[in-house]
Amino acid sequence: MKFMKKLHKIGFSKLTSVKDAYNRLIESIEGNPSEEIPSKDCLNHVLASDVKSEMNIPPFDRSAMDGYAILAEDSFGASPSNPKTVKKVGTSEIGEICTEKVKKGEAIRISTGAIVPEGADAVIRIEETEIEEDVVTLLGSIPPGKNIAEKGEDVKEGEIILKAGTQIKAEQLALISSLGIETIKVTVPPKIAIFATGNELLEVGETYEGNKIYNSNTPMIVSLSKTYGALIQNQGTLPDDKETLKKYIKESSQTCQILVFTGGTSVGTKDFLPEVVEELGQIQTHGIAMRPGSPILIGSYQKCLIFCLPGTPVAAYVGFLQFVGPAIRKMLNCTQLDPRRSIPATITDDVPLSGMGYIHFLRVIIKEVENELHAIPYKLKGSGILTSLTEADGIVEISPIQEGLKRGEKVWVKLFPW
Amino acid sequence: MKFMKKLHKIGFSKLTSVKDAYNRLIESIEGNPSEEIPSKDCLNHVLASDVKSEMNIPPFDRSAMDGYAILAEDSFGASPSNPKTVKKVGTSEIGEICTEKVKKGEAIRISTGAIVPEGADAVIRIEETEIEEDVVTLLGSIPPGKNIAEKGEDVKEGEIILKAGTQIKAEQLALISSLGIETIKVTVPPKIAIFATGNELLEVGETYEGNKIYNSNTPMIVSLSKTYGALIQNQGTLPDDKETLKKYIKESSQTCQILVFTGGTSVGTKDFLPEVVEELGQIQTHGIAMRPGSPILIGSYQKCLIFCLPGTPVAAYVGFLQFVGPAIRKMLNCTQLDPRRSIPATITDDVPLSGMGYIHFLRVIIKEVENELHAIPYKLKGSGILTSLTEADGIVEISPIQEGLKRGEKVWVKLFPW
Repeated sequence: MKFMKKLHKIGFSKLTSVKDAYNRLIESIEGNPSEEIPSKDCLNHVLASDVKSEMNIPPFDRSAMDGYAILAEDSFGASPSNPKTVKKVGTSEIGEICTEKVKKGEAIRISTGAIVPEGADAVIRIEETEIEEDVVTLLGSIPPGKNIAEKGEDVKEGEIILKAGTQIKAEQLALISSLGIETIKVTVPPKIAIFATGNELLEVGETYEGNKIYNSNTPMIVSLSKTYGALIQNQGTLPDDKETLKKYIKESSQTCQILVFTGGTSVGTKDFLPEVVEELGQIQTHGIAMRPGSPILIGSYQKCLIFCLPGTPVAAYVGFLQFVGPAIRKMLNCTQLDPRRSIPATITDDVPLSGMGYIHFLRVIIKEVENELHAIPYKLKGSGILTSLTEADGIVEISPIQEGLKRGEKVWVKLFPW
Repeated sequence: MKFMKKLHKIGFSKLTSVKDAYNRLIESIEGNPSEEIPSKDCLNHVLASDVKSEMNIPPFDRSAMDGYAILAEDSFGASPSNPKTVKKVGTSEIGEICTEKVKKGEAIRISTGAIVPEGADAVIRIEETEIEEDVVTLLGSIPPGKNIAEKGEDVKEGEIILKAGTQIKAEQLALISSLGIETIKVTVPPKIAIFATGNELLEVGETYEGNKIYNSNTPMIVSLSKTYGALIQNQGTLPDDKETLKKYIKESSQTCQILVFTGGTSVGTKDFLPEVVEELGQIQTHGIAMRPGSPILIGSYQKCLIFCLPGTPVAAYVGFLQFVGPAIRKMLNCTQLDPRRSIPATITDDVPLSGMGYIHFLRVIIKEVENELHAIPYKLKGSGILTSLTEADGIVEISPIQEGLKRGEKVWVKLFPW
């Protein structure tokens, strides 16, 4: 029996486990090469090699407070009722070199961030002093080292400060900038094309007809792909037409490493994508033991990876998080292929399940209750139900060998990405 | 004694509590007006009014599976060992209108997403059937309603699906698209200018000198401001020069609602910003009982809000999260002024503290350990220490009346934004 004829007739006879499909996918992907880009443009990119510091941070012993640089021992025993005095002999300003030295019985007025002058071993906060002419009264006792950030305390010269495989956020960008690094080696981001398929699809702006639906998958997958670090090369809506699908696969594979289709991947009579991928290239996995998302197809044409996600938005969303996202990040050589954070919570209701053998992706709402987090299940039914994504905070994966969840059970919630 | 002279001499005589500074700030801010923008461009914007659905989703009773639309009662009692048969009388395809009806003893081949034909009350999955010519053999028994997504099940016509004050992410964008909404009312984002101040600052690309430091605050605050929804109008580095600072405040206030300075805000001899803000406009708060971040100044010039954050990067970061970010989101009329998520964790070490009366912002690393999360304290010292941000995952706020943390104590960690 021919491939699609059989599929149309009997559906999926055997489903691949999520784990097997994932491992097969990830093993089939090689990381991208690297490129050098200006560090000012590196936000959201992934580091292709470790970043080493060529300098100490702080580059010198630096004052952490506004006050007076002194010898700590001059303050020993000082208090508001037993003040001690030292003599102000100079000032140390930010960005300037202080040539004066501090000797016993002396103090130098110092600003936060300025170089601690030679001789001084502590900085007393201005709030703990009084000054009259050049006589500084110390109202507190401080230990040596107080309020001094030592040279190299944050970063030592030659130290690895960021590891290859890290995605660059605001904090990493700040650290890179603080080292004066001008260009940085990042992994070339994969280019991706995203098409919703289906004769029933309308684009926003087209007049509504009662048997059609508006395409919501393309903007969603585009936005997720950007977050995960891919470059959007092309996007749109395609009809259920074999030749058109073939044409777009051939064209996109010239410029893209990843091609995502939504819709047309199951065993419906107009689901042409499995046949098209089979004819042009290879199917790696078709039919996965997950709900929602079981009709997902993963395949390839030449060097281009093809994902066919279900047309129902929640299934497409879950399919992206489970497979497309990690594939993007594998190409980016990310250390962490799934960037989502898992948090523990208590489930607030029984979640009965039919369908052992499937991983169920339960959307939950997170609520802070006294000293813990509650996970309120959003109804499991309906893989089209977009409000289950806009109202929920994350996903609980219910394993294929679990019959469901019992109220009060501890679960791990994978938060939605960003 | 003149304002700055006094400040330079005695430092902060009185610090405002974080709570009071926050409340005073938030109360002083009015929300921005709204504007209509194409929904395709609305990502990261904040909804200015509730979004109502003008249609049902699904717009019709829709099949959730590939299979046969039947009367459920025709399947009652069916099993692989006791199959029942019905007659295939037509097909219902996605995007097409099905004119055939299903009567007792009949079935219509239906694709996922297609309209359930009149008469049918359930869809049996193709995997539970066999077909030979036009005879469909049912191998399972299904209840009425099975595999049908009812019209309006996800969203009912007239229902509010997204509330004013919501920031739009991928999922919200998908929902808006699915309703065919062309334009959407969002709050006008505040424009912001960000300047690092200090004679000691070098820009990336400039040659390093031993008494200078590279500016890392501007790229960090720029990137955080974008995440929080502001538009960057101007950015750069300014010297410690009163006239220059005044000029930039006057200029920026013409086009910006928010002006952020880093550095020059404390009681050092070159910290001119407090004086400049005092002379030109109003100081709302100067000196806050928090560590790091105590020298923070919040003020205004005409209608422009001015934040002077410390130059030390961690203090600037914490100051942004605590004050600038919520101010941006108040202008955006966001429901949730602080978008960070709090999660419970167990602290793995004692954290002794000196300085009661201050909120301490402890950076922690989150680690999954068996069935819970551990929060590993990153050393508290050093507000310049950028690696405490790149290596940590979030912040524990230690209240002013706590003496520190004990190992094993439960804490709430505010995760870093995105």
